[in-house]
Amino acid sequence: MALPDLRVDLINAQYELQSAGFPVILLIGADDRLAADKLIDTLNEWMDARYIDTRWFGPRRPEERAYPPFWRYWRELPAAGRIGLFAGAWATNPVGERIFGRLGAADFQRRLEHIRQLEKTLADDGTLLLKFWLHLPPDEQRQRARAAHKNKNKYWKFDEEDRKAYQILDRVLPLCRQLIRATDTDSCPWRLVQTSDPRQANLTIATTLLRSLRQRLEPVADKPVSPASRPAAGDGKKPLQAVDLNARLDYDTYKTKLVKQQRKIHRRTAKAARHGLCSVLVFEGWDAAGKGGAIRRLTRAMSARHYRVIPIAAPSDEELAHHYLWRFWRQLPQAGSLTIFDRSWYGRVLVERVEGLADESAWRRAYREINDFEAQLVESGINVQKFWLHIDADEQLRRFQAREQTLYKKYKITTDDYRNRDKWEQYMRAVNEMVERTSTTAAPWHLIPANDKRFARVRVARIVSRGLKRQLDR
Amino acid sequence: MALPDLRVDLINAQYELQSAGFPVILLIGADDRLAADKLIDTLNEWMDARYIDTRWFGPRRPEERAYPPFWRYWRELPAAGRIGLFAGAWATNPVGERIFGRLGAADFQRRLEHIRQLEKTLADDGTLLLKFWLHLPPDEQRQRARAAHKNKNKYWKFDEEDRKAYQILDRVLPLCRQLIRATDTDSCPWRLVQTSDPRQANLTIATTLLRSLRQRLEPVADKPVSPASRPAAGDGKKPLQAVDLNARLDYDTYKTKLVKQQRKIHRRTAKAARHGLCSVLVFEGWDAAGKGGAIRRLTRAMSARHYRVIPIAAPSDEELAHHYLWRFWRQLPQAGSLTIFDRSWYGRVLVERVEGLADESAWRRAYREINDFEAQLVESGINVQKFWLHIDADEQLRRFQAREQTLYKKYKITTDDYRNRDKWEQYMRAVNEMVERTSTTAAPWHLIPANDKRFARVRVARIVSRGLKRQLDR
Repeated sequence: MALPDLRVDLINAQYELQSAGFPVILLIGADDRLAADKLIDTLNEWMDARYIDTRWFGPRRPEERAYPPFWRYWRELPAAGRIGLFAGAWATNPVGERIFGRLGAADFQRRLEHIRQLEKTLADDGTLLLKFWLHLPPDEQRQRARAAHKNKNKYWKFDEEDRKAYQILDRVLPLCRQLIRATDTDSCPWRLVQTSDPRQANLTIATTLLRSLRQRLEPVADKPVSPASRPAAGDGKKPLQAVDLNARLDYDTYKTKLVKQQRKIHRRTAKAARHGLCSVLVFEGWDAAGKGGAIRRLTRAMSARHYRVIPIAAPSDEELAHHYLWRFWRQLPQAGSLTIFDRSWYGRVLVERVEGLADESAWRRAYREINDFEAQLVESGINVQKFWLHIDADEQLRRFQAREQTLYKKYKITTDDYRNRDKWEQYMRAVNEMVERTSTTAAPWHLIPANDKRFARVRVARIVSRGLKRQLDR
Repeated sequence: MALPDLRVDLINAQYELQSAGFPVILLIGADDRLAADKLIDTLNEWMDARYIDTRWFGPRRPEERAYPPFWRYWRELPAAGRIGLFAGAWATNPVGERIFGRLGAADFQRRLEHIRQLEKTLADDGTLLLKFWLHLPPDEQRQRARAAHKNKNKYWKFDEEDRKAYQILDRVLPLCRQLIRATDTDSCPWRLVQTSDPRQANLTIATTLLRSLRQRLEPVADKPVSPASRPAAGDGKKPLQAVDLNARLDYDTYKTKLVKQQRKIHRRTAKAARHGLCSVLVFEGWDAAGKGGAIRRLTRAMSARHYRVIPIAAPSDEELAHHYLWRFWRQLPQAGSLTIFDRSWYGRVLVERVEGLADESAWRRAYREINDFEAQLVESGINVQKFWLHIDADEQLRRFQAREQTLYKKYKITTDDYRNRDKWEQYMRAVNEMVERTSTTAAPWHLIPANDKRFARVRVARIVSRGLKRQLDR
């Protein structure tokens, strides 16, 4: 295809993409740095740069190292309708960290597994992910390095960093090969492009991009229906049935025990803050189960400097234009702080499942996605604790009615709340399955009997306080 | 007012606020840390916490220190309809930095001036800014510190940091007084609240907040019309008239000179990146003046690792819900990188002025706001360079027509472009006034004759290359 035609077609495809409702990521890995630079420049020139988010992810900056490795990618994921041109990123970052000793051999393998998981997560969510690896054979790299050394005038773009990159090429290439093999999956295959002729390489990539865009933009006649998944077999005792809802505390015991835990929490959050340690506390539970009250008993013990409460409501337009985990990645705690999620990413397998807002294949794969997400948090040193506040249907009704009697609590209750009660059984099933599938060693669920608010608050406070201690003792 | 009533009224006011289209900031300064903590907790309890953005801004974190001091506040400004509860922030940060020697006496004064400017900017834009200072008299602070020392059990919230804060109280208070005096303006006055009785203090603040919210939420009968501003007197030679549009370069000279500058730019951006230095380049100009081409001649010389081009289009909904400078603060370069704005914050005094999208008082005060914004960038070490690419109306017409002949450039031209030509004279006036009012010593405008693209590109490249050198030589 002639270049002017290709450019017109690419730009038109970009415009169609805007209304098509999915994001595109072009991941560029390279052992040829110069070619990668040239490619980025060229794509921005050939296409309408206003709809391309070009991001070069080099070595992680100090402030990025305070977060899990994939945090920076999640923050920058393109919205539906846009193209993210990601250079380096997870295609080369693990190699760099491995070479410079920041990543052990086992960690490297674990990182590769997280990459597979990330790419699957994005692809499952509808992202068109295209991966290109720009390769210049070692002997040509040698020739170029020599030529650049002799003729600095002609090769003025070949700079000190390119020289350094060439010097470690022998060590880099085997790791690149390993990464490419490990992440070359059916749904997200690598496309190797030789860069001996850079212009030809760019044309190849642009043409492939155009073809892939067109394929995805064409209306699909009939989408294959995902196979109906069987209900989980074996209906033994479900997690929620094991919760003893009769647990109670009298007022004096409650006061004494609560203050005791609050003091510990105060001391430990302050210490964690000094040591730059992070926590993520997740609160889920029935409407009116007392999440807010339990959270406030925690935050009253902490200094406002050290925590942040994130109430999770229905997603905004911007959030809907991204993967559902995107907004939680953006809210991860900064070094030394504690984030409390009042409702969380588990909405996917609870309200979105029961209300039919996510289709079955979407919420089914969410278990795995969530487990991987939380594993990354824990691996990067974050203390993750998850609470389900459990009450029974009668207690909930009593509380709804009491709220309607209290002026300043009326706003907490809507007709939706009553409607949700009709689906109690469906929610029970969803919660049980959630607990079974996402109670991992790293981040187990704590099921809190909450028919008695005092008991629940003390129980939560004690678990939080112990979690902080474990983190500080590590 | 009884507390339950106050809570109901506050929550109702919050709901009205959501549709009212302005943001609220509650700035909390304090010499009484415990009271500030308690206040934040209480307000979150009394109101609907889902619509409050609580932010505790303590000492700047390392990654925040890489940006101008006010960067972190701009990022977190509440959107229209929300309440930002800002603790510490610019109310106490300058005091802390002064005490710990990060800020000299003159810098402290300059910071106070920037605070006045920031608050005026926010208030002018419609933000309801309420400032409360929580004060506990020194003798009561002494009593409390002693009591806490004796009875650690009762005063378990009084911790190590509170002790430290008490120890430097004598040095802190005079600086606080200075800050309060300097930033106690008619439009944004400080409200001092004594915290001897913390509960009473919280009630006072909540009541004041409610009253202020109500005042603003009530429909205003007739808004006073801002006095019509006189046209700038003295119609001497205007900046644009001084531009020699006949400047030209032949192809060979162009090629030689351009490559020479590009090499320098390549070397200098790489060096700046190594040293963590930042640049902001601003490109404005007539439609079809060649901004894109000039920018590409720069970026081709740089590594994609080191720069980012931000094309500025019409603001998104989220951006419209904030002050117009908000989105530019968010885009400031990270340490060691260079950001090119293809159009910029000058839209306020150009297109928004001419097309009537901003009313006169809004674009008139924008000159001062922009000058302060850029002064902050320069003070924090950022190399700021601004370019106006100038062509005449005939040359523009020729280029529009040529674009229509080139397939892949057609998308760049719309009927709007032709319509804008009718307002050439109005734009001329707007540009001239912009150049006159925002050409500061720190960030002067460069007017580039661009009837000849080659000449313009080389001129721009040379100015950029020199700017980088000046920055590196500092």
